[in-house]
Amino acid sequence: MPRYRMTVEYDGIPYVGWQRQENGPSVQGAIEGAILRLTGETVSIRGAGRTDSGVHARGQVAHADLARVWAPEKLCNALNAHLGQAGERVSVLEVMAVDDQFDARFSALRRHYLYRILCRRAPPALDAGRVWWVHRPLDAARMHEAAQTLVGKHDFTTFRSAHCQANSPVRTLDRLDVTRDGEMIEIRASAQSFLHNQIRSLAGTLKLAGEGKWSVADVRAALDACDRRACGPVAPPDGLYFMQVDY
Amino acid sequence: MPRYRMTVEYDGIPYVGWQRQENGPSVQGAIEGAILRLTGETVSIRGAGRTDSGVHARGQVAHADLARVWAPEKLCNALNAHLGQAGERVSVLEVMAVDDQFDARFSALRRHYLYRILCRRAPPALDAGRVWWVHRPLDAARMHEAAQTLVGKHDFTTFRSAHCQANSPVRTLDRLDVTRDGEMIEIRASAQSFLHNQIRSLAGTLKLAGEGKWSVADVRAALDACDRRACGPVAPPDGLYFMQVDY
Repeated sequence: MPRYRMTVEYDGIPYVGWQRQENGPSVQGAIEGAILRLTGETVSIRGAGRTDSGVHARGQVAHADLARVWAPEKLCNALNAHLGQAGERVSVLEVMAVDDQFDARFSALRRHYLYRILCRRAPPALDAGRVWWVHRPLDAARMHEAAQTLVGKHDFTTFRSAHCQANSPVRTLDRLDVTRDGEMIEIRASAQSFLHNQIRSLAGTLKLAGEGKWSVADVRAALDACDRRACGPVAPPDGLYFMQVDY
Repeated sequence: MPRYRMTVEYDGIPYVGWQRQENGPSVQGAIEGAILRLTGETVSIRGAGRTDSGVHARGQVAHADLARVWAPEKLCNALNAHLGQAGERVSVLEVMAVDDQFDARFSALRRHYLYRILCRRAPPALDAGRVWWVHRPLDAARMHEAAQTLVGKHDFTTFRSAHCQANSPVRTLDRLDVTRDGEMIEIRASAQSFLHNQIRSLAGTLKLAGEGKWSVADVRAALDACDRRACGPVAPPDGLYFMQVDY
């Protein structure tokens, strides 16, 4: 069967997350529904990352096996037409024909995420649900310094959800940069793979460093503790964006 | 009575526009409602620009006269608390105490707007309602060239809504710049004041130049015609942001 790779953008707010679940609409379900209405086929697609409810994507990648051969651009436009008719907040940015060795999840070499913090006194109006609103001042340079102690290969047990299903807590964090652009603080994280809630756990802990409540050494000590109870409060999903996957 | 100047951000989607109207919720009404619940006073506030339904703001300015003296930051926080409780998509970014010579509308020296066009094949998911989606390629350099023929003092009858209540169709357009940032085309317009629907009329006409349907000379001829029927299709409100007011 021909396999297609899809790059997907979505607004995480109306969904229970990427993965199909009993308790509400999912992004995966939205796309599978569009495929069913387009081709009559009931397929199960696989995504590069199972984002949580409220987490957004600018470049999630998924693959699907379909019965017939499609011109990629035609398939992309047809899926968007069906997604739009259903009122979904999901858009397929690009479709590529790939061979059956390609797997959106297992072929991924690197995943890139962005976490946005709106740092100002007034709550967000235009960006509600799209940022973490922190109304106290944050020192982005200090957050960046603390972040650098977390880059590299470590046991990330401290920054891992209790529900994480990965076999190992060891991951290699290639990048964890913190920059400021006016009122917006942006955290960019890259790794081959992440643990469940890892980026939100890291963002919540870096915020403590930004407020001055934790020193850079405190952040490093939390990592070294390899204990979930050493983690700062987990940041909300609102500010998290799945940006890109490298293959 | 002490007068307060408020800088306001809002998501235009749920509102009939800035101005209080019979047919639905307005931004003005949302703020007046927050003032009523906070102070018990029924006031009428005045904004620098009466944005249409669906038009957003990052820096609308309004003024209000209140009975008692408030610490500006305390008033700002209290208004945001009441706006948030009411579920409004409006946020007061800053409050300043001003003298009674200040008028948000009539003291304005210059108004700055941004119009955003998302130019790509796939419809917007994250930016739905926040951009004008144009799925054909646009030449931003050509749009900018056409825009420069409109800068300056002109009779803008062509680019003025039939419902415009201004006494004169003559306005001085100080800036009309078109730039591209990846898939986003941004039009920045500045003037002391604008006619009703002027920026959306200009954006719709510049899009015709960007598609190659109109030459730069065609755009200039439309201006010179001083005839509403010479205007291109009016661009939707989705992409328009009221950014800043200079006093």
